[in-house]
Amino acid sequence: MQLIDGKAVAAQIKEEIAAEVEALKASGGKVPHLAAVLVGHDGGSETYVANKVKACEQVGFKSSLIRYENDVTEEDLLACVDRLNSDKDIDGFIVQLPLPTHISETKVTEAIDYRKDVDGFHPVNVGRMSLGMPCFLSATPSGIVELLKRYNIETKGKHCVVLGRSNIVGKPVSMLMLQKANPGDSTVTICHSRTNNIKEITLQADIIIAALGVPEFLKSDMVKEGAVVIDVGTTRVPNQTSKSGFKLTGDVMFDEVAPKCSYITPVPGGVGPMTIVSLLKNTLLAAKKEVYN
Amino acid sequence: MQLIDGKAVAAQIKEEIAAEVEALKASGGKVPHLAAVLVGHDGGSETYVANKVKACEQVGFKSSLIRYENDVTEEDLLACVDRLNSDKDIDGFIVQLPLPTHISETKVTEAIDYRKDVDGFHPVNVGRMSLGMPCFLSATPSGIVELLKRYNIETKGKHCVVLGRSNIVGKPVSMLMLQKANPGDSTVTICHSRTNNIKEITLQADIIIAALGVPEFLKSDMVKEGAVVIDVGTTRVPNQTSKSGFKLTGDVMFDEVAPKCSYITPVPGGVGPMTIVSLLKNTLLAAKKEVYN
Repeated sequence: MQLIDGKAVAAQIKEEIAAEVEALKASGGKVPHLAAVLVGHDGGSETYVANKVKACEQVGFKSSLIRYENDVTEEDLLACVDRLNSDKDIDGFIVQLPLPTHISETKVTEAIDYRKDVDGFHPVNVGRMSLGMPCFLSATPSGIVELLKRYNIETKGKHCVVLGRSNIVGKPVSMLMLQKANPGDSTVTICHSRTNNIKEITLQADIIIAALGVPEFLKSDMVKEGAVVIDVGTTRVPNQTSKSGFKLTGDVMFDEVAPKCSYITPVPGGVGPMTIVSLLKNTLLAAKKEVYN
Repeated sequence: MQLIDGKAVAAQIKEEIAAEVEALKASGGKVPHLAAVLVGHDGGSETYVANKVKACEQVGFKSSLIRYENDVTEEDLLACVDRLNSDKDIDGFIVQLPLPTHISETKVTEAIDYRKDVDGFHPVNVGRMSLGMPCFLSATPSGIVELLKRYNIETKGKHCVVLGRSNIVGKPVSMLMLQKANPGDSTVTICHSRTNNIKEITLQADIIIAALGVPEFLKSDMVKEGAVVIDVGTTRVPNQTSKSGFKLTGDVMFDEVAPKCSYITPVPGGVGPMTIVSLLKNTLLAAKKEVYN
């Protein structure tokens, strides 16, 4: 069994991006600039956004953080999106989800100029990804594929079982694993809450991508010997012995599943760190206008 | 075994649409207007477009046919798309594919205003479909789902195996079968030319959607007893005994597969007639501005 070290791969890619930013600066090019909009004070969102800002600094990007209180109106938030859309210095921006219930996440996501949508959530980027066209890939699916690539894991002709059909992981990662590409070219099965015989299906999988958000869902009797297991789950399970009061828990019962795997990602330190790196990669592409003009 | 009669269902839906157009006219509403652009004289394309125009007349739509010779420039074709985009009388239009190789199909498809893209091929409509948002569904996937619905075929929790990963059938129909909807809520496996053990997978399927474009690919030993088989294949196989010189041949070896099925579509007369009906439905939605304003 080999552990897929997402933290190490992410650190390496950050160095590659930092070197490219240096070269850009040296040649008089534009310094990539990522803006993040954060509404309210949700603990998870605060952490994610802080990590994104920190990562920007590490690779030499400019970053801006725009904060709103929970009672911001949808109108004001949409006006902020408009300003960021037309701000020539900002190459890409994200609005951290979830948003308060009085604001439509769909409306906000659609209001973002798709050419600055470095989260890859806008319908244009989702559609282009599905069609195999150049686009901003959404961060988690893109991070998963990058891990498979860096570890030279064969995907062509393999049976990849995706657990979960969310718009931000399950559906897009299925589309990526399906494309005529490397990584890609897999036979893909997508399971979800309505799947009847889930164990029967996971036992056939060469690659399992678990993105249900159900802590420790995948047990060892559901995994065949030699499988590759990618754990996308990051549920905060209350835990009194940890300083934060919770333990980040994946969708895989790691201790019993790991011995059966050829490769497996841990939680934390697997897919998580790759997500931010994908965002940085998109922002760099945006600054260099390599996807859209 | 029950035959799924696409021709009869399509006729019924056309009557429903015709009644709605009558009501629209009676209340002073706008008569839906579909335009089709045809480049060159490919036999298949000529037939498809002629059938679309005929179907428009049957339901009381206005229709326009714009023809170009094979040597039309990309620039001229894009100018035509622009004119149709801004023509207020035209609710929706299609550019019949394939196009001559000197014209980029992607560029032309993207140039179409997504609010008039009744073929559902534009990245915005593809993305919105994947995200489960209101959109113009592409015609063949939408026709397949409509057939399952009209025959009350249970899809929830069923294992649906899709053969083929094309942008116009395999990928979108997989997304539709996966959605939290009825029809939908299926566990979906997508197989393609790189799938190793295709028979092992099709034998598990409750529903098979064959869209490989390989005549008579699906044999009886690949199908389990009681399966639902939807045949999307329409390859023109040369045949000297038929008047046209070819025989429209599906992806399913019908004679040997049919006896094992609970439901099966024939070719022709199955999915084919539904495709045009989906186009009419989208055009009606466009005229009523029910998807986009």
